[in-house]
Amino acid sequence: MKKFINNPEDVVSEALTGFVDCYSNYYEKHEEVNGVLLKNRRKDKVALVIGGGSGHEPMFSGFVGKGLGDAAACGNIFASPDPGTIYETAMAVENSKGVLFVYGNYAGDNLNFDMAEELLEEDGVKSTHVRVWDDCASAPKDRLTDRRGIAGDLFVVKIAGAACDAGLELDEVKATAEMARDNLRSIGVASSPGQIPGLDKPTFEIADDEMEYGMGIHGEKGIERTKMKTVDEITEYLYFNIKKDMEINSGDEVCVLINGLGSTTILEMSIAYRKLKELLDADGVQVHDSDINSYCTCQEMGGFSISILKLNEELKKLYDMPCYCPYYAKEGK
Amino acid sequence: MKKFINNPEDVVSEALTGFVDCYSNYYEKHEEVNGVLLKNRRKDKVALVIGGGSGHEPMFSGFVGKGLGDAAACGNIFASPDPGTIYETAMAVENSKGVLFVYGNYAGDNLNFDMAEELLEEDGVKSTHVRVWDDCASAPKDRLTDRRGIAGDLFVVKIAGAACDAGLELDEVKATAEMARDNLRSIGVASSPGQIPGLDKPTFEIADDEMEYGMGIHGEKGIERTKMKTVDEITEYLYFNIKKDMEINSGDEVCVLINGLGSTTILEMSIAYRKLKELLDADGVQVHDSDINSYCTCQEMGGFSISILKLNEELKKLYDMPCYCPYYAKEGK
Repeated sequence: MKKFINNPEDVVSEALTGFVDCYSNYYEKHEEVNGVLLKNRRKDKVALVIGGGSGHEPMFSGFVGKGLGDAAACGNIFASPDPGTIYETAMAVENSKGVLFVYGNYAGDNLNFDMAEELLEEDGVKSTHVRVWDDCASAPKDRLTDRRGIAGDLFVVKIAGAACDAGLELDEVKATAEMARDNLRSIGVASSPGQIPGLDKPTFEIADDEMEYGMGIHGEKGIERTKMKTVDEITEYLYFNIKKDMEINSGDEVCVLINGLGSTTILEMSIAYRKLKELLDADGVQVHDSDINSYCTCQEMGGFSISILKLNEELKKLYDMPCYCPYYAKEGK
Repeated sequence: MKKFINNPEDVVSEALTGFVDCYSNYYEKHEEVNGVLLKNRRKDKVALVIGGGSGHEPMFSGFVGKGLGDAAACGNIFASPDPGTIYETAMAVENSKGVLFVYGNYAGDNLNFDMAEELLEEDGVKSTHVRVWDDCASAPKDRLTDRRGIAGDLFVVKIAGAACDAGLELDEVKATAEMARDNLRSIGVASSPGQIPGLDKPTFEIADDEMEYGMGIHGEKGIERTKMKTVDEITEYLYFNIKKDMEINSGDEVCVLINGLGSTTILEMSIAYRKLKELLDADGVQVHDSDINSYCTCQEMGGFSISILKLNEELKKLYDMPCYCPYYAKEGK
């Protein structure tokens, strides 16, 4: 696997430098750690700090923006940022109204973000967290907290960012972000692996005519490997698995994300969306807003996921607030 | 190559249906042809119609929006839209102030867009065109009109869209878009091919340790095939080739796009941007704005291109006007 890199060890620091250089109208890099900070951010609100391992770009660094994250703490590729990075990143953006951390539910992230919260507490800075576990393929329904966070992270960041902007207090922002998380399910399919720069093997192996449902965004094992199917069949399978997990009724309003894992094209994902819309229409479910993009990738992995966020009045109001960053902009309604 | 499709023959029509379904808050599909139309568009200005072959998503359908294209005429994969499609798409959005077509400089597109212009003329609708030929690897400097259009299309669409919004007349919009085109150069590098859905072979072959400079976005032959190099070496090569072709002086202001061809990650392109910024800084060139994204793809092709737009006062003013579509939003300055 050919990669456009220099020294594999420098990938994350060089990429963060370039990323912040490119978007220097919006971002600055933390002077000491791998944290991306929003310039000209509001200082009168709860600070939203997001983060996790690198390698999933634009997630998380690309979701720092107005009405989104105030900062992102970035780890090495597929590795949690260390507690010091998280702590310093949070300290750089906290405004004495407290810090909400939003991140994917992985053991390393949980441990390191918790340690950062302890460090903040020692400094008298209030903080709390919402762990996203939207991947309904990664553990059974009665073990929600064992599930992984995948592309649905974006919806929780969007809602939490809007709640911060709306002036809610820390415990209210947390409750709202949890509401988004609990109304959200995702599931994906993979057809080819990604590869970490510098390693000589991809994250998994799969035959030329096979695909696997439910794989994670680091190549974690899924729930079923089969021969390649049509995208209509795949979309039905994914949607029915989400419906098995979350009640979706006629009259419900939802937001939908079809997320590419790296090398799957907008063309292919648009075909999937077409089928999904048919299925939602047949169920009487109304789509409030939707996106097709590669927001949470696993390097150049092939495949995509479907995320569905069920709205209620509160979530809809927050979803409809505007947000802006170079990778994700909503005009607001 | 596994693709997420149904019947290969239905890829473009199914994808366009899904794409327009997904962004139905913004777009509608032309009832008869493969045209994407902006809803709620301004009716008091020159209509900007963009288009070309499908398979490069989000280019072109994804650049229909406020301050961007009013509509996109979409061909089959890597094939120009037919004259009827272009004509009908233009007729659906023209406002009696004339139509400007912006598209990449390819024989098929040139022929079909010209024929559509003749059809419009028969109906008494004024139209003209700007062909984008930003790829400086595709023909020598004294044969500009033999060059191909690649990712730099986006800059010409941005400037033309802003010129339309600013209320310029058709001939002025054309002159402005040509000014953008003439101040723009791009060049790319490829490391792996893309594949058209339904075909059993990729667009080209390349060894596991090789890359090629100057390849086109349909896999057209480039200017030099070599062993894989570091991204810093590649970035220097690309920048120096642009500088050989276009005068860039200390004090100049530029906009920069690093465009991924499909499977190349934001992480990798960010490292390239870091090097490019060093080189521009050393030359005393100021970056006014920049992006790292996969805006003009060749299915899941590996590689990226650098596009540089040299600004003058007029181009800068137009570039700084706001625009919005789901794939490309600028807040304006």
